[in-house]
Amino acid sequence: MKRTHQCGTLSTANIGETVTLNGWVQTRRDLGGVLFIDLRDRSGLVQIVFNPAYSGEALQVADKVRSEYVLAVSGKVVKRDTETVNPNLPTGEIEVQITEIEVLNAAKTPPFFIEDGVEVDESLRLKYRYLDLRRPEMQKTLWLRSKASKVFRDFLDGEGFIDVETPILTLSSPEGARDYLVPSRVHPGEFFALPQSPQLYKQLLMVSGVERYYQIARCFRDEDLRADRQPEFTQVDIETSFLSRDELLDLMEKLVVRLFKETKGIDIPTPFQRLSYADAMGKYGSDKPDLRFGLELVNVSDLVAASGVKVFASVIEKGGEVKVLNAKGCGTWSRKDIDDLGPFAARYGAKGLAWIQVKEGEFKGPIVKFFTEQEIEAIKERTGAEEGDLLLFSADNKKVVADVLGALRLKIGRQLGLIDDNIYKFAWVVDFPLLGWDEEQKRYVAEHHPFTRPREEDLHLFETDPGQILAQAYDLVLNGYEVGGGSMRIYKRDIQEKMFDAIGISPEEAQEKFGYLLDAFEYGTPPHGGIAFGLDRLVMLLAGRSNLRETIAFPKTASATDLLMNAPSEVDPRQLEQLHIKLAKKPVEDKK
Amino acid sequence: MKRTHQCGTLSTANIGETVTLNGWVQTRRDLGGVLFIDLRDRSGLVQIVFNPAYSGEALQVADKVRSEYVLAVSGKVVKRDTETVNPNLPTGEIEVQITEIEVLNAAKTPPFFIEDGVEVDESLRLKYRYLDLRRPEMQKTLWLRSKASKVFRDFLDGEGFIDVETPILTLSSPEGARDYLVPSRVHPGEFFALPQSPQLYKQLLMVSGVERYYQIARCFRDEDLRADRQPEFTQVDIETSFLSRDELLDLMEKLVVRLFKETKGIDIPTPFQRLSYADAMGKYGSDKPDLRFGLELVNVSDLVAASGVKVFASVIEKGGEVKVLNAKGCGTWSRKDIDDLGPFAARYGAKGLAWIQVKEGEFKGPIVKFFTEQEIEAIKERTGAEEGDLLLFSADNKKVVADVLGALRLKIGRQLGLIDDNIYKFAWVVDFPLLGWDEEQKRYVAEHHPFTRPREEDLHLFETDPGQILAQAYDLVLNGYEVGGGSMRIYKRDIQEKMFDAIGISPEEAQEKFGYLLDAFEYGTPPHGGIAFGLDRLVMLLAGRSNLRETIAFPKTASATDLLMNAPSEVDPRQLEQLHIKLAKKPVEDKK
Repeated sequence: MKRTHQCGTLSTANIGETVTLNGWVQTRRDLGGVLFIDLRDRSGLVQIVFNPAYSGEALQVADKVRSEYVLAVSGKVVKRDTETVNPNLPTGEIEVQITEIEVLNAAKTPPFFIEDGVEVDESLRLKYRYLDLRRPEMQKTLWLRSKASKVFRDFLDGEGFIDVETPILTLSSPEGARDYLVPSRVHPGEFFALPQSPQLYKQLLMVSGVERYYQIARCFRDEDLRADRQPEFTQVDIETSFLSRDELLDLMEKLVVRLFKETKGIDIPTPFQRLSYADAMGKYGSDKPDLRFGLELVNVSDLVAASGVKVFASVIEKGGEVKVLNAKGCGTWSRKDIDDLGPFAARYGAKGLAWIQVKEGEFKGPIVKFFTEQEIEAIKERTGAEEGDLLLFSADNKKVVADVLGALRLKIGRQLGLIDDNIYKFAWVVDFPLLGWDEEQKRYVAEHHPFTRPREEDLHLFETDPGQILAQAYDLVLNGYEVGGGSMRIYKRDIQEKMFDAIGISPEEAQEKFGYLLDAFEYGTPPHGGIAFGLDRLVMLLAGRSNLRETIAFPKTASATDLLMNAPSEVDPRQLEQLHIKLAKKPVEDKK
Repeated sequence: MKRTHQCGTLSTANIGETVTLNGWVQTRRDLGGVLFIDLRDRSGLVQIVFNPAYSGEALQVADKVRSEYVLAVSGKVVKRDTETVNPNLPTGEIEVQITEIEVLNAAKTPPFFIEDGVEVDESLRLKYRYLDLRRPEMQKTLWLRSKASKVFRDFLDGEGFIDVETPILTLSSPEGARDYLVPSRVHPGEFFALPQSPQLYKQLLMVSGVERYYQIARCFRDEDLRADRQPEFTQVDIETSFLSRDELLDLMEKLVVRLFKETKGIDIPTPFQRLSYADAMGKYGSDKPDLRFGLELVNVSDLVAASGVKVFASVIEKGGEVKVLNAKGCGTWSRKDIDDLGPFAARYGAKGLAWIQVKEGEFKGPIVKFFTEQEIEAIKERTGAEEGDLLLFSADNKKVVADVLGALRLKIGRQLGLIDDNIYKFAWVVDFPLLGWDEEQKRYVAEHHPFTRPREEDLHLFETDPGQILAQAYDLVLNGYEVGGGSMRIYKRDIQEKMFDAIGISPEEAQEKFGYLLDAFEYGTPPHGGIAFGLDRLVMLLAGRSNLRETIAFPKTASATDLLMNAPSEVDPRQLEQLHIKLAKKPVEDKK
């Protein structure tokens, strides 16, 4: 019985044809001795009918099948009676009168229904992932991901990029996140590391004269997991030589436009907005702002520094700032509604949340009495406060103010219905700081990574004020998510050495860990730069999902466990012996 | 200075244009104050000229550049004088008169010349891989590999295959080769393993109803390395549901045809020859026979069993066999030439190598006197021995006879010029044994892997003679290499349990290690099967190279070392502590 058609593709055009189908039993109904089965394959559903009038022995066989049995069936496609047409099913106008059946495999009752929208505990879904993936929305996401990868590849191939595979067994790096390590059997006491990204290999490919490289690359970070992190993740990794930053960004915009056109049918306008890190943080309290709506933050530090609100004055004196989010139209909120924002703000570090309502032409609220008329007028003017508005104040160091008001902006934007889920608003955030101060380690760390090129005009600051250096780095943001990021890279040895020095890597350590790169810079390295897109997250946004695990066929849980295969697991002690390692202590028994 | 053209693409069509180029200095010649530089980018070479007549200051700058400097230059394309045209260079009819130059980066003298065909120690090439990859033949191979991947993807995408990424951090498997392990930080004492192939995930995707899956997948085996093995390698991994073996093989032939057409412009005839494992071993002494030439092996056991050659009789008595390779036309070889085959044969296990020359119408050689006239006639007839032939005898157990005569066949075929390197001769080898007897472990082991489906008609042999069961497995062989392999899979729990039992995996161990698979078989698993192509080896053959390392951008040495980054390496003891492991003993100092 050789399959001739796919279930979901049958239509009135097939009426009269004898077809052979393969698929799974979705539902089964016995109506007075006639058996109706919805048969499902990856293309969709079709109704097949077993009737004593024409099915013969096939009816007896069919009588024993249950949900999720796998069948091969043959029969004739016929038009349904008008009253039994199912307008909700693409194949709803026809059915197949079965004359032959083979049960290819039986099935126990699945632990959950194979259909969309069922409420199932995620750990059960992950344990039975092979059943979970049968659900139409999961199949659709697998398709979408495959399609997205294909669009990336087609575009990049068309633009002369070479797909190069770089090693998974590579060198542990002293910078960046925690590495996954792989003990070497051949070299006792030594370890490979799984790559956090192909960063150094792609730079070396530029040294090799490849000029345009890409790879859809698996990357690994042994970090504590959050909802939107996975121990292994996929990035579309890109590097180019001889292009300026703007040439690269223009090319990447074309790529993104094509991705959205071919996967969603949506036209994304270009050029994408470009805003500096300073502006993004200043106006939106975030380096990945959601630009689908306004509600920009307003700095009022200068206006309130001398006011009677002591906490404002003291924060400003300590180098902090006071900023306002004008929650348009929220001036009518009850005191309770407003107070409820307090605990939310506290999660982002706020010690309190001052506010002013504009009601009946006047500023109202506990702190109003500490302002002068002039101060109130100035605040009103700068924040554009109008009747019915709610001004939310955050006073703290820059980071806390940004975190608090950035989060409030998103929350209130969502609450006010300002966020249209059908809009895809891209922007490039540029001019990031090169270095950030790590208070714990008392040293500068690379904000992006240590291979990011500083702006030419800032190079002199290495000697005087490294914290002020801006980087030739850029992030692509979409609706409040970072979906890509990259930079122009350092390509001269002396600047790379300055960078290592600035982040406290000694010349000896630099030579030991990155000697091959420093050496490479001396053999004719072209100017180069690149970017990496987060494929998991892009697919998540394309699919309209809110969890990365929905976009990955076999994801891991928040505790980095594969519930399907039950990995990681204990291993045979002989394996450890061959790898020249021992367990630090006996594992706790029965902890799973 | 924005690049306008690529060096190798300039031609007489560009004469008169002002172009801006980026590239590397290949060579530099000063002829009486005029400087000629061959500038190289990934597209090829072009001659650029610095002349006091038009170059101005650019000449002074250019005077300081050396090999492998990175330049940006602008100038006018002109026709070369007839006598200076270089017919060996695609751009040899023109040159570029430079008026502007910028040195983008300097270069030290490289440790070897950046050109094809230079004799350089491979370890030096690997240490400076970023320079080695600049050589045109390496660039060409990178391109070819990228192109081959693209053809695979385009074909499979067109045939409705979904590209699904499966985990790299997965479960250690008790069967197969040695695993690379990854200690878990979150789960003390537990380990992930890197996948030897996505075998089980792709089968689970079939359970998921994906129906057609592919992935260009990285795989890992911690084996002792030979010239043609790498610790990490890439396979084009494919799995389908509901297809018969022959439907799958037909589809894969189309894929291979397209691959060779689009990468080499070669038309491969179909259908590919299909020969059984028994025939392949019998006629060619190999399960991956080179079918570009004949020289088939001939079994003469029955003819010589009663002969006076005692060793023949005794071998046959012990269940071994005597076979002949008729080395056509080698009857004129000197005694020394023939004797030289002895040590070669010994490498494959031969204890000796009997031979007969057909000279002046007669059989000649040390063993001839032990045969009767009738025996000689019978051998002559069966082997087709003619004047000038050389018959090489191997007498031993089947394996040794196959190894020895299979190797001699290849050696002599090559020596006689019977092997045409421009021919690509594909075949499917089918009907492999399901199980092989492991003398060391005194148990059967899976010849392919434990998920291979036995032939339906052989199932009853599990109870009586498992060694006789043939598998629904197939290898794709090309010119003596295995370039792909796969099988129809077991999809019913009871058969999988029989298979585990046959290879000595207890029901408890089966449930512990493969319980998720056995369970999955009970929830409606479709009949399925697949294949994996070795991408590294296919690219090696497409590129006409003889070493897998030439097809991989950053390969590892035979001792699994990355000479460029110097991985593996020792790591910070704190990393090990976080991973709950210790070194078994102190690593030996300074062993690198």
